[in-house]
Amino acid sequence: MLTDALAGLAGELDDDLLVTDPQVVAAHAGDQVPGLSSGTPLALVRPRTTQDVATVLRWASAHGVAVVPRGAGSGLAGAANAVDGAVVVSLAAMDRVLEVNPADRYAVVQPGAVTATVDAAARTHGLSYPPDPASKDFSTIGGNIATNAGGLCCVKYGVTADFVLALEVVLADGSIVRTGHRTRKGVAGYDLTHLMVGSEGTLGVVTEATLRLVPAPLAAATLVAFFPTLESAGRAVAAIAADGLSPSLLEIMDATTIRVVDEAHRMDLDRDAAALVLAQCDTGPRAADDIAELAVRCEAAGAGFVASTDDPAEGEALLAARRAAYPSLERLGTTLLDDVCVPVSALPAAIAAIEGIAERYELLIGTFGHAGDGNLHPTIVHDASSADRAAKAFDDILTAALGLGGTITGEHGVGRLKAHRLADELGPAGIRLQHAVKAAFDPAGILNPGAVLPPLP
Amino acid sequence: MLTDALAGLAGELDDDLLVTDPQVVAAHAGDQVPGLSSGTPLALVRPRTTQDVATVLRWASAHGVAVVPRGAGSGLAGAANAVDGAVVVSLAAMDRVLEVNPADRYAVVQPGAVTATVDAAARTHGLSYPPDPASKDFSTIGGNIATNAGGLCCVKYGVTADFVLALEVVLADGSIVRTGHRTRKGVAGYDLTHLMVGSEGTLGVVTEATLRLVPAPLAAATLVAFFPTLESAGRAVAAIAADGLSPSLLEIMDATTIRVVDEAHRMDLDRDAAALVLAQCDTGPRAADDIAELAVRCEAAGAGFVASTDDPAEGEALLAARRAAYPSLERLGTTLLDDVCVPVSALPAAIAAIEGIAERYELLIGTFGHAGDGNLHPTIVHDASSADRAAKAFDDILTAALGLGGTITGEHGVGRLKAHRLADELGPAGIRLQHAVKAAFDPAGILNPGAVLPPLP
Repeated sequence: MLTDALAGLAGELDDDLLVTDPQVVAAHAGDQVPGLSSGTPLALVRPRTTQDVATVLRWASAHGVAVVPRGAGSGLAGAANAVDGAVVVSLAAMDRVLEVNPADRYAVVQPGAVTATVDAAARTHGLSYPPDPASKDFSTIGGNIATNAGGLCCVKYGVTADFVLALEVVLADGSIVRTGHRTRKGVAGYDLTHLMVGSEGTLGVVTEATLRLVPAPLAAATLVAFFPTLESAGRAVAAIAADGLSPSLLEIMDATTIRVVDEAHRMDLDRDAAALVLAQCDTGPRAADDIAELAVRCEAAGAGFVASTDDPAEGEALLAARRAAYPSLERLGTTLLDDVCVPVSALPAAIAAIEGIAERYELLIGTFGHAGDGNLHPTIVHDASSADRAAKAFDDILTAALGLGGTITGEHGVGRLKAHRLADELGPAGIRLQHAVKAAFDPAGILNPGAVLPPLP
Repeated sequence: MLTDALAGLAGELDDDLLVTDPQVVAAHAGDQVPGLSSGTPLALVRPRTTQDVATVLRWASAHGVAVVPRGAGSGLAGAANAVDGAVVVSLAAMDRVLEVNPADRYAVVQPGAVTATVDAAARTHGLSYPPDPASKDFSTIGGNIATNAGGLCCVKYGVTADFVLALEVVLADGSIVRTGHRTRKGVAGYDLTHLMVGSEGTLGVVTEATLRLVPAPLAAATLVAFFPTLESAGRAVAAIAADGLSPSLLEIMDATTIRVVDEAHRMDLDRDAAALVLAQCDTGPRAADDIAELAVRCEAAGAGFVASTDDPAEGEALLAARRAAYPSLERLGTTLLDDVCVPVSALPAAIAAIEGIAERYELLIGTFGHAGDGNLHPTIVHDASSADRAAKAFDDILTAALGLGGTITGEHGVGRLKAHRLADELGPAGIRLQHAVKAAFDPAGILNPGAVLPPLP
């Protein structure tokens, strides 16, 4: 029966858009989430137009088939892990930058456009698209929008949501809507644009996005500072934030991460330090002065060693330790990469809590992340024998973040990885309301079932 | 019967919270929208706690009574114009600033807190709450959130939505939910916080808001420039925006407004100019240099006269013309204040279109507004004999804005004033989706019926 239905869909699409080859389909069945397996989808569709997407969704609604949209599959929370019997819709082929408008500073792009490609297109006009998830060289705008992706520069520029002006969305029933506006301001109707951002393909499929651009950043100066205690590092971060010095990057690494990176790369890092803080100011001619101000704050907070440079190559070298953090931890075993966010003032307490969890479960947990936003990526290294303890530690880290007034996910998303913990953050009334919104968009529940929301109790 | 029901509500609330005195009730039946009359509500409730609000909404749901929430009643689109038989819920008494947290830069406030009071509370910690609608000295945060209020500083700092981190909301059935988070980032579940912002009391009643604060601005330098043509003024605005010079204020006044202000106040304005542009940079020690850069852009674009100052009192004097714009127009008759937003590049075309509409209907229309955002406030002066023409001109201005890729409302909201035009901007599928969202929050339609959404066709 379903084969007949699939044949019907094939008949409505151009020849090469529907793929049922099990190997190809399986290769599109999951994302980069650690430790979560995917189901076996029925087929893969690779639409080239909004109408193709509408055709698939109309068909899926008529036949009650689940649809799992995906971009590059670089997500870290399993939002693109397909369920059994679903049709996977890959937006990767809809990858064009349709327009860059320098006068009004926006770009119109298809969902499969690669993040770095969009930024590069903006740069040819002296503009930039700031959001810079670590995956920016291969992640797509559609995936960034689905997860509300963050990155290093959020501390100054904001997250993906701050750059989405308008969307074209195909709804579950195949109808096509446009949300938002190209103007800087606009309050005509409910803000469905930002409801879509972060909804992980559970409310509709984004087929076009209008993105806000900003003037390209100027040259950056860079600072590195080692701190003898977590508290002193926390004081430095808080002081930098409070003074409005507006760094374009403000990162932290804990003692474990420092040691692991130094063992892997022999960078002469201070292995006795409790934390390393990295900062950049991208203010061109003012950058050296601005970074000097940051250095003063670090020293006042108790930094043991501070170095800075306004040479771009030297700055990149200083950042190498941070860029090596996750790969260095990955060398040591299987990793569970977490993503919690706490108020900036709670950073030292959060790192200390994670260190306590590492001790309790006798695990190596390296913590690094976006200090200026309070967004940490504790990375739990384990092997088969410690997988159970790792899962418990992962869960305890979420609990610790909530206890500090934080959230279970700062920028990776809930996906299928954390849906079972969402009620701990939102409460039963919050979950009921989230389900009501989901039902308004997708009454039959065909869009990416199992992502974001836990089942109603 | 309804009297019995009201008596039941009275029994559930503290003695002085429910008011049925027709004069007091009538005084709370509308906002500042021009030319729209309100209905006759049944009663006024002045809750002091979230539980009071929940009690009212539970009661209203049980009895099918409409609820019209209001703050200061300074709205300009009729969102607080009550309907017949409604209960008006004034949040004005819930006016406390509950917490200012300087370390994590947020404030927790009740909805009735006055905008300027929240900013003043932040300033005592060296911080600020930037959104600055013209009504900020009496408007409330709840009203600002309901309409997603803008203001002069949006060009640099953003609108109200950009400062709302988390909300406590009472839903139509009386249940209480919390949305959002106090952290800088967070993607746990759908973003219902920003769905609430701008929803004009039609999805729930905000009873507490957590607001992002920023470091207090530094001293500002100010510039005024007169332009011989709309095009030259538009070039200047575009050049300033494109270079990332980040003015904290970038305003425009057209020839009609210049003349009317000068006639009222004898400010020696250049009445031959086609437009006046005002700008500020609030960058303290760098402000004079920054404003000099802006002056260069204005001269290059063809400004006839440019003056600037870094003296705060002189700067305030230069702004006097802009602050006098609406009051000067108001002296001349009844006014219809509009609020459209277009792409910044379309500013000259928008002003020219409005001038054409003024000629066509033989009306005085003064246009001023937030040039840096493309947000214009054409103000139509009329009397009883020209009221019909004024209404038509108002409508034509909305059509012109849409034709230029703009929106029917930049910062005042749809309210009851523009609901009949919303479909022209969102299309039938968009309106259906907006209604589905409304129904998810308020299935019986008791929350502020008639605001935002037109009836379904």
